[in-house]
Amino acid sequence: MPSSLRASWAWMLLIPGWAVGWAAPSSSARSDIRNCTTTPPFLPPTVTDTSGRLSALRQRMQSYNVSAYIVPATDAHMNEYIAERDARLAWITGFTGSAGTGVVTLHKAALWTDSRYWTQAARQMDCNWELQKIVWMDAIGEWLLQEVPAGENVGLDPFLFSIALWQGYTRVLKDSGRTLVPIEDNLVDLVWGSQRPPPPTSPIYLLPETFTGSTWQEKVSGIRSQMEQFSRSPMAVLLSGLEETAWLFNLRGSDIPYNPVFYSYTLLTTANISLFVDGSRLTAEAQQALRAECPGPLCVQVEEYGQVRARVQAYAQGDVRVWIGTEYTTYGLYGVIPKDKLVESSYSPVMTTKAVKNAKEQELLKVTHVQDAVAVIQYLLWLEKNVPTGAVDEFSGARQVDNLRKAQEHCRGPSFETISASGLNAALAHYSPSNVSSRKLSVDELYLSDSGGQYLGGTTDITRTVHWGTPTPFQKEAYTRVLMGNIDLARLVFPSGTSGRMVEAFARRALWEAGLNYGHGTGHGIGNFLSVHEWPVGFQSNNVPLTKGMFTSIEPGYYQEGDFGIRIEDVALVVEAQTKHGTGVEPYLTFEVVSLVPYDRNLIDTSFLSEAQIRYLNAYYEAIRRRVGPELQRRQLEEEFAWLQRNTEPFSGGSLVAASLGTLAVTTLVSTLLPDRQA
Amino acid sequence: MPSSLRASWAWMLLIPGWAVGWAAPSSSARSDIRNCTTTPPFLPPTVTDTSGRLSALRQRMQSYNVSAYIVPATDAHMNEYIAERDARLAWITGFTGSAGTGVVTLHKAALWTDSRYWTQAARQMDCNWELQKIVWMDAIGEWLLQEVPAGENVGLDPFLFSIALWQGYTRVLKDSGRTLVPIEDNLVDLVWGSQRPPPPTSPIYLLPETFTGSTWQEKVSGIRSQMEQFSRSPMAVLLSGLEETAWLFNLRGSDIPYNPVFYSYTLLTTANISLFVDGSRLTAEAQQALRAECPGPLCVQVEEYGQVRARVQAYAQGDVRVWIGTEYTTYGLYGVIPKDKLVESSYSPVMTTKAVKNAKEQELLKVTHVQDAVAVIQYLLWLEKNVPTGAVDEFSGARQVDNLRKAQEHCRGPSFETISASGLNAALAHYSPSNVSSRKLSVDELYLSDSGGQYLGGTTDITRTVHWGTPTPFQKEAYTRVLMGNIDLARLVFPSGTSGRMVEAFARRALWEAGLNYGHGTGHGIGNFLSVHEWPVGFQSNNVPLTKGMFTSIEPGYYQEGDFGIRIEDVALVVEAQTKHGTGVEPYLTFEVVSLVPYDRNLIDTSFLSEAQIRYLNAYYEAIRRRVGPELQRRQLEEEFAWLQRNTEPFSGGSLVAASLGTLAVTTLVSTLLPDRQA
Repeated sequence: MPSSLRASWAWMLLIPGWAVGWAAPSSSARSDIRNCTTTPPFLPPTVTDTSGRLSALRQRMQSYNVSAYIVPATDAHMNEYIAERDARLAWITGFTGSAGTGVVTLHKAALWTDSRYWTQAARQMDCNWELQKIVWMDAIGEWLLQEVPAGENVGLDPFLFSIALWQGYTRVLKDSGRTLVPIEDNLVDLVWGSQRPPPPTSPIYLLPETFTGSTWQEKVSGIRSQMEQFSRSPMAVLLSGLEETAWLFNLRGSDIPYNPVFYSYTLLTTANISLFVDGSRLTAEAQQALRAECPGPLCVQVEEYGQVRARVQAYAQGDVRVWIGTEYTTYGLYGVIPKDKLVESSYSPVMTTKAVKNAKEQELLKVTHVQDAVAVIQYLLWLEKNVPTGAVDEFSGARQVDNLRKAQEHCRGPSFETISASGLNAALAHYSPSNVSSRKLSVDELYLSDSGGQYLGGTTDITRTVHWGTPTPFQKEAYTRVLMGNIDLARLVFPSGTSGRMVEAFARRALWEAGLNYGHGTGHGIGNFLSVHEWPVGFQSNNVPLTKGMFTSIEPGYYQEGDFGIRIEDVALVVEAQTKHGTGVEPYLTFEVVSLVPYDRNLIDTSFLSEAQIRYLNAYYEAIRRRVGPELQRRQLEEEFAWLQRNTEPFSGGSLVAASLGTLAVTTLVSTLLPDRQA
Repeated sequence: MPSSLRASWAWMLLIPGWAVGWAAPSSSARSDIRNCTTTPPFLPPTVTDTSGRLSALRQRMQSYNVSAYIVPATDAHMNEYIAERDARLAWITGFTGSAGTGVVTLHKAALWTDSRYWTQAARQMDCNWELQKIVWMDAIGEWLLQEVPAGENVGLDPFLFSIALWQGYTRVLKDSGRTLVPIEDNLVDLVWGSQRPPPPTSPIYLLPETFTGSTWQEKVSGIRSQMEQFSRSPMAVLLSGLEETAWLFNLRGSDIPYNPVFYSYTLLTTANISLFVDGSRLTAEAQQALRAECPGPLCVQVEEYGQVRARVQAYAQGDVRVWIGTEYTTYGLYGVIPKDKLVESSYSPVMTTKAVKNAKEQELLKVTHVQDAVAVIQYLLWLEKNVPTGAVDEFSGARQVDNLRKAQEHCRGPSFETISASGLNAALAHYSPSNVSSRKLSVDELYLSDSGGQYLGGTTDITRTVHWGTPTPFQKEAYTRVLMGNIDLARLVFPSGTSGRMVEAFARRALWEAGLNYGHGTGHGIGNFLSVHEWPVGFQSNNVPLTKGMFTSIEPGYYQEGDFGIRIEDVALVVEAQTKHGTGVEPYLTFEVVSLVPYDRNLIDTSFLSEAQIRYLNAYYEAIRRRVGPELQRRQLEEEFAWLQRNTEPFSGGSLVAASLGTLAVTTLVSTLLPDRQA
C-alpha cells in the first residue's frame, strides 16, 4: 500500500511543492464535488455535520485564550494507524483519511490534505470546512497570518506534534506577533468528552521465541553497545515509537488497528530499563520475562504510561545525555529535555537496527510471503471464477481475501484496511469499500486489490491489478508501463550507501516516457509482525540508505481519475548483487522480490518490454513456481497449482525482435527459423 | 568538467558520507604517496615548504588569541575560480585543488578535501599537513574538539564563510567550551603581506547588445516585479555572486580566471540601485549605460566595493526587508542584517532568473556550440594525425585545443583550465598538465580532453575520451557504459518540477550494473559568457528543479586509478517533450544535447547498447551532421568535413538482435534478409 506515514506527512508539510507539482492528479475544481455557494449547499450524503462540535471547540478555545487551534491527524506516538480515541481530526472534520491537518479559528475551519485525499475529503466534510491543497507549512502559515490577528494566540497539543513540525510552526509565526501556545489539555478531547472511546485493556503478550530474531536481552545489549560506541556519549535512549518498544522486548498488543503494538514508552539507560505501560495488561508470561534478570541492568521496571513526561524530565536533571529519534519524538517530550542534554539523530538506534533484518528475521519474512502468496493466489482464482457471475463486489472481495489470509497458519489478521477497488474507485489510491458503498466487480473493469497480513513471522503487503475481460489498449499500455517500472527498480544494481530517493525514478521512467506518472511514494519498509509501513526504509528523502537486509515495497501505479487505477506492489529484500566488475570493498546491492504472485497476463503488452525485462520476469516466475508450487501441492490445492502453472508460463522475447527490427513480419520469420525461442 | 563549486563543497561539508561512501575511488593508503614517518620524510618534489608560513600564521593566531584558524578555499563571493590574491588555502598549504578546508592549530595543520583531490593533495603538501578524507563538518568538528582545549577560541574570516558553513561550525562547537570567533582581518593575508597579489585594475566593459538576452533595464524591472509579487515583501535584493551583478547589468570583466566577472556587490532596492565596484575601472561606455536613466529608479549609483558592509548595515537599520540567496551570501554580510529584516531563499531571484535562458540566450548558446564543435573536431582530427608520430604531449595538446578555440569568432579564451590527460593521469578527474610534467600521448593509451571556451555568445564545456589504437575489452566496456549513462539521462523524459537529484542515477545505471561508478557529480548549469559551472542548475540536492530553458552538462565517467580515465560530457538544453499521453497541464521535459561532437567509435562496443540507445545515438549524429557539417563546409574545412561524415555514420541495430536472440549467427541471417538495416 502506498505509504501515508505521519512522519512522511510531517515531512511533506516542511517541503515546498507537495501536492501542487507533478504529484497532483487533478485540478482543484474537479475534486471538490461540494457546492457551498448555494442555499442550502450541495453536499454528498457522506458528509458529517460538524457545526455543534466546532461551536463547542470554539468555546474551549476562547476559555484558553487561543484564536486558532491546530488539529493534526497524529497521535502521541506518530503512529500511522491510530486508535479511535486518537482520531481527533476525523471527529472534528468528518474526514477519515490518514493524513491531514485541520485548523479551526473562531470563524473559519480549514483542512489541508494531499492529492491522494482530495476527493475523499470533499465527500466527507461539510461546508464548515475549506479544503486546502497546497500542502506546505508556509501555506498553513500564510492562512494563519491572514485569519488570526496580530497579538493573538495559536494553540496546539505539544504531544501531537513532532519536533520538526513544532519548529516549522514556530518559524512561520516568528516575528509575526502571533504566539504559538502549547496546551497540555487537548481541546478536542475536552469537547469530545464521554463520547471519546476509552483506553484499551487488551493483553500485552510475548511473541513466541520461534518468531523472534533474537531475545530482548540480546537486543538491549546491542543497543547499549551502540550507545557506548557513539562518539556523542548518550547515557539513555528514549523510545517514543510503539514499534520500537514492541520490537525491543518482543512484546505485542492490539491497541492500534492493524499494528500489533501497544501504548508505551521506553527509557533505556546504561544502567536501567524503564518501560512505561499499563502493567496490568501484561500477561503473566510477559511479566515473568521482563523480570527474569532482576535485579540488575537487564531488569525491566514497569512504570505508569502517563508518568513518562515527569520521569524523563526528572532524569534529564542529572548529568546525562538522552538520545532521541527526532523524526517521530513529539515536542511534548523533547521540550522537557534541556538542549545540551539531547543527542539527536533522525532515528533512534532501535529504529535503524530493527530496519536491517537478521538472517532469522529474513527467513521468517520469506516463509511468510510464501504463505501469503497462497492466500492471494486462492483469491485471484476465486475472483476469476466468481466475478463473471456478477456475484462479487468490492466489499465481499475484501472480506474474501481477508478470510483466505486468516485461514493461513499464524495469521493474525490484515496488516491494513484492505483496498479493494473496481473501475473508477481504484483511481483513489487509498480507497477502501464499505458495506454501504461497494461497487460490483465486472469483467469490463480493472480491479485493484491491495492487501496484506499480520503473521507471527512477518507482515505482508501486496497489490495486484487484474482484468477478466478485454482491457483497452491504453489500460494495457499503462499496466505494462507500471510493470516496467516495478521491474526496472527491482532489477537495479546499485552501490552500497545509495539512498532510495536517488533510484526511485527508475520505477517511473517507463510511465514518464509516455507522459504518465503517479502521485504517491514508490515504497516503504515493512516489519516482522509489526508495522506495514516501517520506518526508516523506503524511497523518500528522509529514508536512510538502502542496506543489505532491509525489506521495502516497490509499488508504482497509474491512476486515471474517474476511470481506473493500476498499482503493482511487491515486497523486496535488499541483497548483495553479483557484478561483473567492481572493487569488492563495499558490495553492490540489488533487490530480491519476496512477494510471489504472478502479474495479470491479460494486462501485459509484451511489445513494450525489453529483452532484459522479459528475462527478469521469466526468472521471477521461475522463482514463484519453485517456491509456491510445492506449497500448493503440499496442501493439495490442485486447482490453484494449475492456475499458478498457467500464469507463470515464461514470456517469449519475440516481440522484442519485432521492436528492434521495426517490422512484425520479421518476427514471424525469425520465429519460424528459431521455433524453440517461442515457448 | 565535473563541478567543483565552492557552494557545492560547502554542501558536501554539511552532509555525512561524502568521500567515504561509494564516491571514494581509492583506499586511504593508496592515494597518499608521502611518507612522513621517515627522517627525512619521503616527499614528492612537487610539495611546497610551508614551515615558515605556518610559523608566521601561528604568531598572528596567538596575538588574536585563537588556538585554531580555519582557512577555506573560497573567496568573499563563493567563486569557483578565485584570483591569485584570494588563493589563501593554496598559499598556506601548497595544495592547489579547487575544493578543501584547512585548519591550523598551534601545533598541527590539516587539510580536508574530497576523493577527487586526494592524490593531488598528497603530491603538493609537505609533512606539516595531515590529509583528512572524511569530508563532513562533524569530522572537522571532532578534529577541532580533539586539538583545541576547552575554553579556547577557533577563528575564521566571516567573509569567507557561507551562512550554512558558519552555522555548521557553530553547531559542531556548540556547548563544547570552544568559541567560534569571526576576525575581520584575514590572518593569512597579514602573513602573506606584500607578497600577496594586488587588486585588479583591468577594465569593466559592456557586453555588446548582440550578445545579451535583454537590456539591463529590462532585467532590473523583471527582478523588481518578482520582489513585488513575493508574499514576503522584500524591499531590496542583495547580490553577492559576481555573476549576478555581471548578468544584471550586462557588464563583464576579468578579475577571476576563466570567468568574465569582476569584484562587485549590488544592492537593488525598490527605489535605488547601488553597484559596489571600483568605479575607475568602468569603461566610459559602461559608465554612460549605467547613468542613462539618471536620475530615477533606474539610475545606478556606483559606490566603493569596500563600503558594501557598512552600507548594507546602514540600509538594514530602516524599516526594510532584504532578500538574499543563502547558498552563497557570506556570513560577513548576513551577520549585519537583523534576522527579522531578512528574506531568505536558497538563491536570489537574479540567480533563478538567469538560470532559465530566454529564447535569444538559448539561440546564442546553441550557435556558440556549433562554433565550439568546429574547434573540437579540428582538435580531434589533429590528434589523429599527430599522436601516432609521438609529437603530442598533454600540455601541447591542451595548448592546441585552446588555440583552435581562440581562433573562433568571438572567443575570449578557455572557460576553465583545460584538462588534457593521458593514460593514468586521466584517473584524476581534474588533472591539468603543466609545462614541466606532461605525459606523451600514445596510441596505446586512452586520452581524455575536457575543455571549454568563453565566447561572447555563450560558455561551452565538452569532454571527449579517445583511443587511437586497440583499447582493451574492459576499456571499451567501461567507455560504452559511460556512454550509455550519458544517453540514458539525455533521452529521459520527466515531468515538470523534477529535480536533477531524482534522475541523475540514470547516468550511473549502466556502470552500476557492472559494479562500476564514478565519484563526482553528473552535471552543472552553464552561462552565457559567464560561469562554466552556473548555479543553481544541476543534478545535486541543492539544485533547483529542472525547468524548460535551463542548460546543464551531462557528464558521467569512469576512473581506474593508476590506469585510465573516461568521461563523456555534453551540454544539454531542457526542452518540452512530446509524449504519447499526458494531461498537458504541465509539460513533460527532456534534454536536447547542444554539444555537437561525435563520440569515439573505436571505444563503443555496440553489443552493450539497446535498440533505443542506438536510435538515440543515430538521431544525435544526424543532428551533428545537419548543424556542424554546413559550418565546416562554409569554412572550407574539407578534411574536417570528411572526418565528421566518417565519425557520424549511423550505427546498426544488428547487435541488439543478436543479443535478443542470443546467437550471432542469426544477426548475419537477419542482416542478409534485411540488408538495408545494416547501413
